Amino acid sequence: MTIAAPVERKHVESLVREVLTQRLRGGSSARQIDGPPHPLVVNVSARHVHVTQEHLEILFGAGSKLTKMKDLYQQGEFASEQLVTMVGPRQRIIPNVRILGPIRNYTQVELSYTDGVYLGIDLPLRISGNHEGTPGCTILGPKGSITIPHGVIRAERHVHMSTEDMAYYGVKDGDYLKLKITGPSGVTFDRVRVRYHPKVILEVHIDTDEGNACDLETATKIELIK
Amino acid sequence: MTIAAPVERKHVESLVREVLTQRLRGGSSARQIDGPPHPLVVNVSARHVHVTQEHLEILFGAGSKLTKMKDLYQQGEFASEQLVTMVGPRQRIIPNVRILGPIRNYTQVELSYTDGVYLGIDLPLRISGNHEGTPGCTILGPKGSITIPHGVIRAERHVHMSTEDMAYYGVKDGDYLKLKITGPSGVTFDRVRVRYHPKVILEVHIDTDEGNACDLETATKIELIK
Repeated sequence: MTIAAPVERKHVESLVREVLTQRLRGGSSARQIDGPPHPLVVNVSARHVHVTQEHLEILFGAGSKLTKMKDLYQQGEFASEQLVTMVGPRQRIIPNVRILGPIRNYTQVELSYTDGVYLGIDLPLRISGNHEGTPGCTILGPKGSITIPHGVIRAERHVHMSTEDMAYYGVKDGDYLKLKITGPSGVTFDRVRVRYHPKVILEVHIDTDEGNACDLETATKIELIK
Repeated sequence: MTIAAPVERKHVESLVREVLTQRLRGGSSARQIDGPPHPLVVNVSARHVHVTQEHLEILFGAGSKLTKMKDLYQQGEFASEQLVTMVGPRQRIIPNVRILGPIRNYTQVELSYTDGVYLGIDLPLRISGNHEGTPGCTILGPKGSITIPHGVIRAERHVHMSTEDMAYYGVKDGDYLKLKITGPSGVTFDRVRVRYHPKVILEVHIDTDEGNACDLETATKIELIK
C-alpha cells in the first residue's frame, strides 16, 4: 500500500500557496520557466504483492478479478481489495498483504528488510521485474495457495520520471540521484535510481524501513539532488 | 539487543590489517598522529527495555537480579537473559523484548517506528532518559506486569564519544554529526547526536529501521562527517 497522505498533502498545499501567491502579486499562474515540471512527491511503499491472472485465480478462485480499493498516485495503478498471507521459511507469517493492480505478467513480492528478518528471507535489492537469483515464498489466499520459486525482493529505492522530469534534473534512465529529507530524523538517501516511463509523473518510492528511518511524516523539506 | 557482528568485525579486521601493514613496513604499531583515537563502530540497537530494580522484581519476582547473556560494546553494558512482552493500545503484542543491563534508575522502552506503527504507539524521538511528555505502555513478565505512564521512545540516533573522540572530530556534547554509509543502499544520516561520557569508547547507535534502510551489513565504507 502506498502511504501518500502527509507528504503529498504538504506538496499540494505548497503548490496551491505558490499559485495563490503569484496571483495575489498579479503574476502569472503558470509555473516558473526554471522550476520543476512536476512537484516532488515521495511515497512510502508498504509491503505488497503483484500477481499474474493465473496466480490470482489460484488464490481467489476461478474467474477472479482484482477489485479497486483506491487509486495510487500513478495513473492506472491501484491498491486492490485483495489481501494475501506471506509464509516464510521460519514458519512465521505476515497476514493482510495487499495486492497492487493492475494484473502483471509476473508475480512479485516486495518486502522491507524488517519483514525479511522476521520471515527469515534474505532479500535481494532489485528493481521491479528483475527476479534472477531471487528467493521465492509461499502465498496463501482464501481459495488456494501458490509457492513461487523466485520473485521476493526489496525494491531498490527509485524515482519515476517522464522525459521532461529527466530533462529538468539532467539525468537518464538508470542514473542515481540523492534524496535529501530534512527534519528531526533527517536522512539523505544516496542512491535513488531513475526509472523512466513516458507516461509517469514524478514520484519517489521508498520502503517502510526507509520511510521510518527518516520519519517522512515530520519532514520539513524534500529535495532531489545530484 | 545490539547487533554488532558484521560491521564491528570489518573494523577490527581493518585495524588488524593496518597495524600488521605498519609492522611489516618496519613502522611503529602506534596509531598515526593524525588518525582517529578509536575505530568507528556502528551498532544497530534492536528494540529493548531498561528497568529499575523495583520493576524487575515485579516482572520476575522478589529478589530477582539481571543475569548476563552477553557483553555489549561499551564496558559494563550487557544484554541480559531476561525477556518481556510489550503490549500496545491496539491489543497487539511484541514478545521476547530483551532487557539491557545494568539496572537503571528509570524504566524505558526503546522501539523502532516500525514497532510503534504495529503496536499503535506514536513514538517521540528522544535521547535516553528524557521522558517528559512520552507515552507509556504495559510490560508483561513471567511473574507480573507493570504499566508505565511514560518512557516509551524512539532513541535519537547518537554517537558515544569520550573527550579525545570529541577533540578529534572537533565537536562537543549535544552537537550533531553526519554518518555516511556507502553501499548498495547508501544513506547519509544527517543528524547523529554527540553524547559525551568520559568512560565510553567511540560507537554510533542507530535503530533497526535505520540499520535496514542503509542495509548496514552490505556497507563498504562508514564515515562520521561534519
